[in-house]
Amino acid sequence: MEETTTGVIRLEAMEKDGALKIPVVAVNDADTKHLFDNQYGTGQSTVDGIIRATDVLLAGKTFVICGYGMCGRGLANRARGMGAHVVVTEVEPVSALQAVMDGFKVMSMDEAAVIGDIFCTVTGNTTVLTTQHFEKMKNGALVANSGHFNVEIDIEGLEELASKVNRNVRNYVDEYLFSDGRSIYLLGEGRLINLVAAEGHPADVMDMSFALQSLMAEYSVQNDLTPEVHSVPREIDKLVASLKLQTMGIEIDTLTDEQETYLNSWEEGT
Amino acid sequence: MEETTTGVIRLEAMEKDGALKIPVVAVNDADTKHLFDNQYGTGQSTVDGIIRATDVLLAGKTFVICGYGMCGRGLANRARGMGAHVVVTEVEPVSALQAVMDGFKVMSMDEAAVIGDIFCTVTGNTTVLTTQHFEKMKNGALVANSGHFNVEIDIEGLEELASKVNRNVRNYVDEYLFSDGRSIYLLGEGRLINLVAAEGHPADVMDMSFALQSLMAEYSVQNDLTPEVHSVPREIDKLVASLKLQTMGIEIDTLTDEQETYLNSWEEGT
Amino acid sequence: MEETTTGVIRLEAMEKDGALKIPVVAVNDADTKHLFDNQYGTGQSTVDGIIRATDVLLAGKTFVICGYGMCGRGLANRARGMGAHVVVTEVEPVSALQAVMDGFKVMSMDEAAVIGDIFCTVTGNTTVLTTQHFEKMKNGALVANSGHFNVEIDIEGLEELASKVNRNVRNYVDEYLFSDGRSIYLLGEGRLINLVAAEGHPADVMDMSFALQSLMAEYSVQNDLTPEVHSVPREIDKLVASLKLQTMGIEIDTLTDEQETYLNSWEEGT
Amino acid sequence: MEETTTGVIRLEAMEKDGALKIPVVAVNDADTKHLFDNQYGTGQSTVDGIIRATDVLLAGKTFVICGYGMCGRGLANRARGMGAHVVVTEVEPVSALQAVMDGFKVMSMDEAAVIGDIFCTVTGNTTVLTTQHFEKMKNGALVANSGHFNVEIDIEGLEELASKVNRNVRNYVDEYLFSDGRSIYLLGEGRLINLVAAEGHPADVMDMSFALQSLMAEYSVQNDLTPEVHSVPREIDKLVASLKLQTMGIEIDTLTDEQETYLNSWEEGT
Repeated sequence: MEETTTGVIRLEAMEKDGALKIPVVAVNDADTKHLFDNQYGTGQSTVDGIIRATDVLLAGKTFVICGYGMCGRGLANRARGMGAHVVVTEVEPVSALQAVMDGFKVMSMDEAAVIGDIFCTVTGNTTVLTTQHFEKMKNGALVANSGHFNVEIDIEGLEELASKVNRNVRNYVDEYLFSDGRSIYLLGEGRLINLVAAEGHPADVMDMSFALQSLMAEYSVQNDLTPEVHSVPREIDKLVASLKLQTMGIEIDTLTDEQETYLNSWEEGT
Repeated sequence: MEETTTGVIRLEAMEKDGALKIPVVAVNDADTKHLFDNQYGTGQSTVDGIIRATDVLLAGKTFVICGYGMCGRGLANRARGMGAHVVVTEVEPVSALQAVMDGFKVMSMDEAAVIGDIFCTVTGNTTVLTTQHFEKMKNGALVANSGHFNVEIDIEGLEELASKVNRNVRNYVDEYLFSDGRSIYLLGEGRLINLVAAEGHPADVMDMSFALQSLMAEYSVQNDLTPEVHSVPREIDKLVASLKLQTMGIEIDTLTDEQETYLNSWEEGT
Repeated sequence: MEETTTGVIRLEAMEKDGALKIPVVAVNDADTKHLFDNQYGTGQSTVDGIIRATDVLLAGKTFVICGYGMCGRGLANRARGMGAHVVVTEVEPVSALQAVMDGFKVMSMDEAAVIGDIFCTVTGNTTVLTTQHFEKMKNGALVANSGHFNVEIDIEGLEELASKVNRNVRNYVDEYLFSDGRSIYLLGEGRLINLVAAEGHPADVMDMSFALQSLMAEYSVQNDLTPEVHSVPREIDKLVASLKLQTMGIEIDTLTDEQETYLNSWEEGT
Repeated sequence: MEETTTGVIRLEAMEKDGALKIPVVAVNDADTKHLFDNQYGTGQSTVDGIIRATDVLLAGKTFVICGYGMCGRGLANRARGMGAHVVVTEVEPVSALQAVMDGFKVMSMDEAAVIGDIFCTVTGNTTVLTTQHFEKMKNGALVANSGHFNVEIDIEGLEELASKVNRNVRNYVDEYLFSDGRSIYLLGEGRLINLVAAEGHPADVMDMSFALQSLMAEYSVQNDLTPEVHSVPREIDKLVASLKLQTMGIEIDTLTDEQETYLNSWEEGT
């Protein structure tokens, strides 16, 4: 059961290289996982982690989000919801354009580096914030990661650039001083800030991910899976969503026979 | 080149039945089409159509949206953006749960019928608003469709239920009077309200859809397509997004070689 | 009964100069007028007017609002609600700071002129958009006014600057061509765009303003008013709000005796 | 220098009763105080306190806010920004109507008690949540206060109603069990949750309040103040806003002479 975007990318690369020896279920790719956990879970908990680490007021701040995948979308919405001016950077043009249309400023990291008060990487990639960006940042800029591992920010580069480092000026906050008088604050040593400074995803969204894992474990035993990366069947995805709605006391409609027929036919309604 | 969700559903049903005799490109399913045109285009123009038809103040009104596909999402966000209290009805549990988490109330159509001031169907299905709902609606309820055709609202049922109909009490507004003294206002005879009362999708989102059609027409000629429903290649999707960003004067980042390698490898970063 | 911000400013200046010969009620200054009509009424109808005049897609556009009074706030929220990137310009530092904290970019008009796609003045003042700004605007910029009269935009200056004017390229849209190849589009001849191209404020917010006028007319007859600018008594303001809530079917709480006493006392709870 | 809404109410009552013996400045009532500190400070820090205490996911939850003053507005916007479905209760009809038009559901506390997942009082009054409401609440309801003192929730009544209390089931969370099997969770013993479980208002909004206090202390010494409740002069209010904008690197416009004249005259522009 693979629970993360990064993990699924790795496992698919392994499968492609013939290195995958056991069956794996890409639980992360189920709708009831990545559309919820990654979006609403990472969104809230990243804001939570940054506030706990710094107690910064988000209203009126320029908040730069690197990456507009599900995590980035969640974070962008929550940061805007707290009154921040959100800037998005992207490498994928379709995602970039969605960010624009969703009301966020989009620009290159070089441009964003100059104006940001708070930076957070959520790309799943490496070396997204580099020395070329640190050199342009404002005095007092806060830099965090909520994507994966501690490789999205070039910490080594930051250390080399700084003339002095004050560790733990606040819990989970290291101050990097530059010879030009500026300070940049690195949060949680560049590790996932929602895990470092907050409590990770809230239980009431993890329940869905765990339900998927549990149901897929059962499914794996009942069906003899080949050593590949498998998807979660749509029926199990829908079951998890239905159960969650039920626990929230929410009732939805069902298709009538007439509507089922209408949807499946091309002779009616055309 | 098929441009609509409804059309693609029909054409896929035809292909399944062996009734499709010519190659078709599901332009609608390209990201740069349905994520933009259906969402931002339908969202704005539906609000526009309802306001032009009725001049209703949306702030403080309960706005019921039937369907939370791309059109429904766009409309929900725009209606909320105008100050409305948005209620969503759905038949698909994953979409319903997304609506909840996006901050919208979700309930059955039976429950929504009682509290709504404005109703708009965007389902692509038939007979979504029925006599069972009209009977529960508040006096003065506005009823519109922005999904497809004029079948989402059971107009025949509405006519039978009403004791009198006043046509065109305002342009594009018919008043249905009931013997219990209530009135329900049907907008645009249940046809697509953004086409009837407004101008359809703005040109600055249709440009993307037309770019796709044009590029795929060229592609179809260059590649000998079989009589099936074909997808838009990812590269063309990305090209349209890149061109659109360019016209907006927006620059984005590109992956470095190191990042490309990192993404494609499973030996690094694990 | 004076219904507008501009009118009250004028009447107070008359009173100060001893030029006011009759009693006047500043209906505009009642909470149930300027907090609602000016905010939600102007907000929606200005967006409506701009869309009817141009059919522009607001999502992703940079929308510059000159003035962050009640009209400006309403417009800023509605423009953001349609997906626009809102920029606010102001002369009053407290209002400017509120705009920042509410999540809007704030800058000088000189800076905003360069990046805006759409401009709308709502200041109640004169000569807010001038030739110095037109010279910096992007090709295709839309310029409108929803503040008062037709003096907020320096139309004379615009005419002198332009090498050619194409009247009515669309209803309510005049194109001003410059010798450098750029075009600026002036909407509604710089008159109130919500009145010119849309229907003004919706009836369901004007009802409150008219209720105030009517109740204050009665009050004026019953009380022998001096020739000054009079305020609306708080009780009448609250009555209008209560009546409006009632028509919307909304019930609210009332203070208990214990709560009344607690609020009015300084010996308890300190 | 009085910094709180509650304090000013008390001091004005004292002045009215002739009990005020020293000059007092109502710093709270300055725009740069209550429009910012109370709104953006309380808004963010209350959400912060509730999340730290409970780690609840706000997205999709019904969040009931008692009171729509500046604190309530701030909290309502932040809770919505985190994806919650916000319900507002009020006793003042104008504020209630504003909440409706701002897109929030408004209802009586009796109605809200039934549907809320999270409750937070911000009224400055006493006994807002009572046994009559606890009896209707859902199993698992979270109850907090961010208004003043610990009197907004009837804790004594809650204790009498409960059949058992589990203290500190999580830091700052007490579980009240009822004989019918429901639990209600009281946060921070009903004291200000942003002070109990979070860090109070962020420094970058308190700076404005402290600047006001400091400038008014100087002003008090320079001007021989009478033993009354004094307001902050408008010029000092504007100075604080200007200084804050400056620290954020934001430049705004100034009125031209022509504009000053226009605003002050009633002979022009009428």
